[in-house]
Amino acid sequence: MTRLEQQIRFIIEADKLKEITRQTLTSQSRRAENTAEHSWHFALMVMTLAEHAIGELGQPLDVLRVLKMALIHDLVEIDAGDTFAYDEVNRTDQHAREARAADRIFGLLPEDQAREYRALWDEFEAQETPEARFATACDRLNPILLNTLTGGAAWQKHGITQDRVLERNAHIAAGSPALWDYAKSIIKETFSASAPCGTDSHARTTG
Amino acid sequence: MTRLEQQIRFIIEADKLKEITRQTLTSQSRRAENTAEHSWHFALMVMTLAEHAIGELGQPLDVLRVLKMALIHDLVEIDAGDTFAYDEVNRTDQHAREARAADRIFGLLPEDQAREYRALWDEFEAQETPEARFATACDRLNPILLNTLTGGAAWQKHGITQDRVLERNAHIAAGSPALWDYAKSIIKETFSASAPCGTDSHARTTG
Repeated sequence: MTRLEQQIRFIIEADKLKEITRQTLTSQSRRAENTAEHSWHFALMVMTLAEHAIGELGQPLDVLRVLKMALIHDLVEIDAGDTFAYDEVNRTDQHAREARAADRIFGLLPEDQAREYRALWDEFEAQETPEARFATACDRLNPILLNTLTGGAAWQKHGITQDRVLERNAHIAAGSPALWDYAKSIIKETFSASAPCGTDSHARTTG
Repeated sequence: MTRLEQQIRFIIEADKLKEITRQTLTSQSRRAENTAEHSWHFALMVMTLAEHAIGELGQPLDVLRVLKMALIHDLVEIDAGDTFAYDEVNRTDQHAREARAADRIFGLLPEDQAREYRALWDEFEAQETPEARFATACDRLNPILLNTLTGGAAWQKHGITQDRVLERNAHIAAGSPALWDYAKSIIKETFSASAPCGTDSHARTTG
């Protein structure tokens, strides 16, 4: 198998990500979004919001590396499925399941690229660089934004309280204080619109 | 409206791309893919296949710029819809319709970013840089690959012949001769598998 054939084999395998659905609903037709389209929306946020990242002193953020992380990070869901952010049971072994998937899926690539993609995936998981922390800030803000646009539909369905949403997403601040301030404001707005009478505030729009 | 609010307004508008469907079918469930998930798959090809691009002599390809082009190029379909590559009628005014959409959609961003995104979109359209030509090579190879994985379903549905597929996609070579050689081989293999008896070769796999 040539190098190009190995790369194409990986690209073909990646197409399966279009079949993995998430708890978050799209803002328009309000169907469950899939992880492939999420990965695109996430990457679009990275390139559009990069100025709000906290970088190392005097070091500009490496936007290319953040984009690469965004584009490949969720490929592991082809084997491991999507784990809902508030699913404490399945989150306990999430990293182990996803690491096995990373071995298999990145292993389809030529060896040097398999190593590069795995290093990007590991960097995202470790949350030790400004790039990884900003990637997470965008990855977490994305479903918050879509949830607020659908009246908190996914939160309501699973009985997730405002305190839990705030607690679970507080690490956005480590990648971008500005995005965390914005996230807090729309979370609170959504819960205050829907909480008092328990109704679904479908008419709500954000931004 | 703050700068961040303008950026978020653009991100929210972009979510509509998940509702725009294309003629190409996904390889697994064989439903029509949408343009958001296509944009992700396209960007994944860019980062994985960049070594096959023709660059300027002694100049490495600016992969970040190609990725940005891939992520934003199809946003215009929110207003202009997807135009099938073989639809000669709707292709006549495609650029004009899409340019109007680019004005509106990128115009949601802060002015400096609106200018940057429009310049990226114009660069892709003009096909004058190695980055734009490689972006097009990946953008065109993507549906060819998915079509070959589904026995040429979209081509058969619209009565597109092998000669037309080869003619319509020959400009892949300007961005990457290696990808064009590969594309030609899988196009010919798909048509030779399906043509003689007119059956749909659903069992075919590539790579």
